[in-house]
Amino acid sequence: MISAGVFGATGYTGFELIKILEKHPEVEIQFAASQSFTGQILANIYPKAPPLPLIDGRNAPYDQVDVVFLCLPHAAAAETAVTALAAGVKVIDLSADFRLEDAAVYEEWYGKTHPAPHLLETAVYGLTEFARDQLPGANLVAVPGCYPTSVLLGLRPLLAAQLPLAPPIIANAASGVSGAGRKATPTTHFMNVADNYTPYKIGRAHRHLPEIEQVMRWWNPDAPALIFSPHLLPVPRGILSTIYVTPQGAWDLAHIRQLYADAYANEPFVTLLPPGKLASLAYVTHTNRCVIGLTQADDTLIITAAIDNLIKGAAGQAVQDMNVVFGLEETVGLTG
Amino acid sequence: MISAGVFGATGYTGFELIKILEKHPEVEIQFAASQSFTGQILANIYPKAPPLPLIDGRNAPYDQVDVVFLCLPHAAAAETAVTALAAGVKVIDLSADFRLEDAAVYEEWYGKTHPAPHLLETAVYGLTEFARDQLPGANLVAVPGCYPTSVLLGLRPLLAAQLPLAPPIIANAASGVSGAGRKATPTTHFMNVADNYTPYKIGRAHRHLPEIEQVMRWWNPDAPALIFSPHLLPVPRGILSTIYVTPQGAWDLAHIRQLYADAYANEPFVTLLPPGKLASLAYVTHTNRCVIGLTQADDTLIITAAIDNLIKGAAGQAVQDMNVVFGLEETVGLTG
Amino acid sequence: MISAGVFGATGYTGFELIKILEKHPEVEIQFAASQSFTGQILANIYPKAPPLPLIDGRNAPYDQVDVVFLCLPHAAAAETAVTALAAGVKVIDLSADFRLEDAAVYEEWYGKTHPAPHLLETAVYGLTEFARDQLPGANLVAVPGCYPTSVLLGLRPLLAAQLPLAPPIIANAASGVSGAGRKATPTTHFMNVADNYTPYKIGRAHRHLPEIEQVMRWWNPDAPALIFSPHLLPVPRGILSTIYVTPQGAWDLAHIRQLYADAYANEPFVTLLPPGKLASLAYVTHTNRCVIGLTQADDTLIITAAIDNLIKGAAGQAVQDMNVVFGLEETVGLTG
Amino acid sequence: MISAGVFGATGYTGFELIKILEKHPEVEIQFAASQSFTGQILANIYPKAPPLPLIDGRNAPYDQVDVVFLCLPHAAAAETAVTALAAGVKVIDLSADFRLEDAAVYEEWYGKTHPAPHLLETAVYGLTEFARDQLPGANLVAVPGCYPTSVLLGLRPLLAAQLPLAPPIIANAASGVSGAGRKATPTTHFMNVADNYTPYKIGRAHRHLPEIEQVMRWWNPDAPALIFSPHLLPVPRGILSTIYVTPQGAWDLAHIRQLYADAYANEPFVTLLPPGKLASLAYVTHTNRCVIGLTQADDTLIITAAIDNLIKGAAGQAVQDMNVVFGLEETVGLTG
Repeated sequence: MISAGVFGATGYTGFELIKILEKHPEVEIQFAASQSFTGQILANIYPKAPPLPLIDGRNAPYDQVDVVFLCLPHAAAAETAVTALAAGVKVIDLSADFRLEDAAVYEEWYGKTHPAPHLLETAVYGLTEFARDQLPGANLVAVPGCYPTSVLLGLRPLLAAQLPLAPPIIANAASGVSGAGRKATPTTHFMNVADNYTPYKIGRAHRHLPEIEQVMRWWNPDAPALIFSPHLLPVPRGILSTIYVTPQGAWDLAHIRQLYADAYANEPFVTLLPPGKLASLAYVTHTNRCVIGLTQADDTLIITAAIDNLIKGAAGQAVQDMNVVFGLEETVGLTG
Repeated sequence: MISAGVFGATGYTGFELIKILEKHPEVEIQFAASQSFTGQILANIYPKAPPLPLIDGRNAPYDQVDVVFLCLPHAAAAETAVTALAAGVKVIDLSADFRLEDAAVYEEWYGKTHPAPHLLETAVYGLTEFARDQLPGANLVAVPGCYPTSVLLGLRPLLAAQLPLAPPIIANAASGVSGAGRKATPTTHFMNVADNYTPYKIGRAHRHLPEIEQVMRWWNPDAPALIFSPHLLPVPRGILSTIYVTPQGAWDLAHIRQLYADAYANEPFVTLLPPGKLASLAYVTHTNRCVIGLTQADDTLIITAAIDNLIKGAAGQAVQDMNVVFGLEETVGLTG
Repeated sequence: MISAGVFGATGYTGFELIKILEKHPEVEIQFAASQSFTGQILANIYPKAPPLPLIDGRNAPYDQVDVVFLCLPHAAAAETAVTALAAGVKVIDLSADFRLEDAAVYEEWYGKTHPAPHLLETAVYGLTEFARDQLPGANLVAVPGCYPTSVLLGLRPLLAAQLPLAPPIIANAASGVSGAGRKATPTTHFMNVADNYTPYKIGRAHRHLPEIEQVMRWWNPDAPALIFSPHLLPVPRGILSTIYVTPQGAWDLAHIRQLYADAYANEPFVTLLPPGKLASLAYVTHTNRCVIGLTQADDTLIITAAIDNLIKGAAGQAVQDMNVVFGLEETVGLTG
Repeated sequence: MISAGVFGATGYTGFELIKILEKHPEVEIQFAASQSFTGQILANIYPKAPPLPLIDGRNAPYDQVDVVFLCLPHAAAAETAVTALAAGVKVIDLSADFRLEDAAVYEEWYGKTHPAPHLLETAVYGLTEFARDQLPGANLVAVPGCYPTSVLLGLRPLLAAQLPLAPPIIANAASGVSGAGRKATPTTHFMNVADNYTPYKIGRAHRHLPEIEQVMRWWNPDAPALIFSPHLLPVPRGILSTIYVTPQGAWDLAHIRQLYADAYANEPFVTLLPPGKLASLAYVTHTNRCVIGLTQADDTLIITAAIDNLIKGAAGQAVQDMNVVFGLEETVGLTG
């Protein structure tokens, strides 16, 4: 039995994680911490939540847990990670703090000096399907961002095959409102979301851009630049990325389908859809699945990739990572 | 040409009013005031708004207007009304400040001493269809609340006929999110509204209860008490009230239909639906209409009454009132 | 291990049942039948479904199953039940066919002569919480309707206490669109549902009325008549019933709260909310829970009761019944 | 006063057109025809509609009208156009029948031999802003498709400037459900649309592709090929196209902004948003506006263009065309 603590339990990601861990047969939630709601119980914040007491994270009983999950704002996560690791506790961080390998890039995009740059090189980037070598026994896991998970799973077989690709790759992505967080703002007001559809930070302006490009270049140093355009959808959850790639030279769809089929043949949570089928949110919400569709349009390959932003894009993948870290069956506790 | 000023132009009601006044052939908007956005232009707050400058209400040029519309919080509205009336400007108040005739009842429900109790008896309660005698030339009009408009139009013919009714009358009402205001709060967060349906302040707890009962008793001193149960709908706009009344003694639906048919035969904005038809939001959103359906269930009469909360329930009715106050055709500038 | 078959696997209820049974540790789905999609696989109809082959129900291998679930239209269900029972297979029927004890009432409301009236008295009405004496070993279970489940759980403690109640009881209920079925009709077209809210068959016109009144009178022969008014909500799933009851004579809310607290103290799936809290869909969607809030308004008691119409109102309760029939722990395979 | 007839009055486009024409001060609706609902009144089909009788289109009184609007399926529209033109009546066709100049291309994409190829060269492609020379007095107008309107207005200044552009241009577009028509199908079922977001016919598979490319090449014979990917949004109305273009050679955003500013400076219905602003549905629903935002991302220009698919994308533009055809002020009867 793994004893776990959750920091930031009252954000959408934190609560989603609590729901998964509660049903996980190999995990016991030892504590849940919340800065805003210290002393309350989780059921007061979420109607469907269990009556879990919310402690002050500064008093977390590290000696009673094997692992902590950090659903904290960036910088705060890194600081907590330092404390937890020092106490001998494994850390699975759902913030952005350990995703970028270069502290300077972090500072540029997140506007803060990295609180623990010495930990960057020990962190495992936990896109589970492609981190199975590094995860077992790891002490610090950086769970990928939600958009990056969808785009990277959509691009991986193409990049891994080292096919030359014409610049740029364009990812037109759309996300449900839970991605914008629990804070009540004009952006998340029902009246501004319902019956609307809104692009934001399109092009090369969103913080997930450097994360995606970093991983693309791990897989293929010649990967072209990315144009990444997020849009806000009037739905609670789910991400669909519609990705446009132009392989250089002649190519055929059957060959590329085979790359994907081979890459994902045995994946419990990644599904290549049959020819003619396109990904949509309906395939993936409330699951840890990613579904991928492939379409050819003249010289352009269009990849549609869908995930649930809160599960495969956050809490579910965090648990999938945890399972591998602790040597459990990878799918345990997760809905495919 | 009527020269008008609008206070509170950046709330949902204020903006809806601006949209109506802008197209009104007999009105010129002289100024729009906003406390929160003084110095900005309305188009910065609402994508569809015109580039109207927003002035500080304290500097309102009363000498340039014939009428001001108050889309202000309660108490603030009454204070502005005092100033405007003193300057010889007519006031159409969309707040709750002049709806209740008794300052003590106001204080009980709104938690504040009434700022201008001496004005209460001069105010006309502007449920237009039943205030045509009092509105022409009136200096101070209290536009009814949104829920009261739907419930009162639904009950009026029954009450006016002085039919004895068994207590209580039950109004189960549901409103779109614009009724909750422009402020970003957990209540209006998309995640808490979408895929949800929530009762609030049900029974005898909502501020619109005393307003409705007051008018019911103007029309029929023996009107029974009201149970009023609002619910929040995952839609931007519209109110449906499903009202349960039990007339005492024998009654038949045909007779009661006739009361409604007679009462509303010549009304441009109130429609009695044919037998078997029920009101729904689809009849009324984006219009100044109220539609009413009548159903019998054993001894109980069920009245369904629908309006657009921002139009017939606020800005539209305010303009309808203004039209009568100034002797214009009642329907001008309004969508039926 | 229980071997189960599902008829009508491609309707919303059937698919929800498949999802629950697939994860149920004590059940193996032996077959899934569909008239409309015979020969196809379930994943072709629902993006999230498993690749389950859909057989022709007429060829169902009854000798390989312990129990069949019937998610069929009325009348068709009864005919299949006869065949299954004759083959020695237990039947859990999610249609309306065995809910009404009187074949004449069935004929009046469902417009068909009952196909198997001789079975009516053997059927157990499976509102699990109040059928635990009759369910173990039962051969034929009638799973209650969705609206009846919410109204009956909301009323039960009051009726069981034999408190005298003034007529009528009014249940103003609202349901998500899945309750209207998978068939594409004008009623279920997105354009007619979104941004709308629609009453239908209000008063004493909906088929669930006689079912509810029948059970109310089992519990209290003097129960008053019911007014039952369903409304269609622009949400996929969930039912909220707002129920108005007037106990005769003096009463206090604390006493009535105690009746509910006692009745549901040990129920895994029924929760009495704390004072001041009202039920809403957010408490229950995607779970087998029912939550209940109690409010007093003068002489009237207002009960708010919410369930997920597809789970506690259909597939979840069917599995809860099955668990009791077969002597399993009642909560196994279900989400509270 | 223009006397007008409407064919196909009961589709979404037809009803939207009726709503606009009813308020148009220079138009009188002489008749409304509907094949499916002949003999009924429009208010039976749409709650908000007027009680307009629906005649059989085959009995249309052509001698009483100056113009007919065709909101008919393709092929049926062309056949009606032939009859109307022969009767000396002007035709504004909202179908696809006269948009493509080449009958062979029409046959390829619409699967039918064109019913009236001899009319193709007389038809004016009514993208009003760029057809003002040809529209006055025209007898046959082809109103552009909804997606084409958004994409073409978004691309026009760039194409007109004859800037060399690298292939392909990618238009990632999303539309509300009204674009899918009034027919109840699985695609338009609330359960399949709500909480979902679905790509369809992406790449080079949608019928609007050849229409867009044809007009692109009128404006710039060297315009690159288009990749056009529509998606279905869970909203009733509105289209947002996010368009990716890579000008060849060096370019700067200020220069391109100036092209757009110049092109649209005096347009009543097309608005270039200020730097940093992106188009969204909230700017345009329920109006005849198109708003356009420009963003640079390295070498790529991203154009966001939004319209209301039923208004500027259909009925509104049809009326805008009619205004020009008959020499009225272009904006009369339309909401900017």
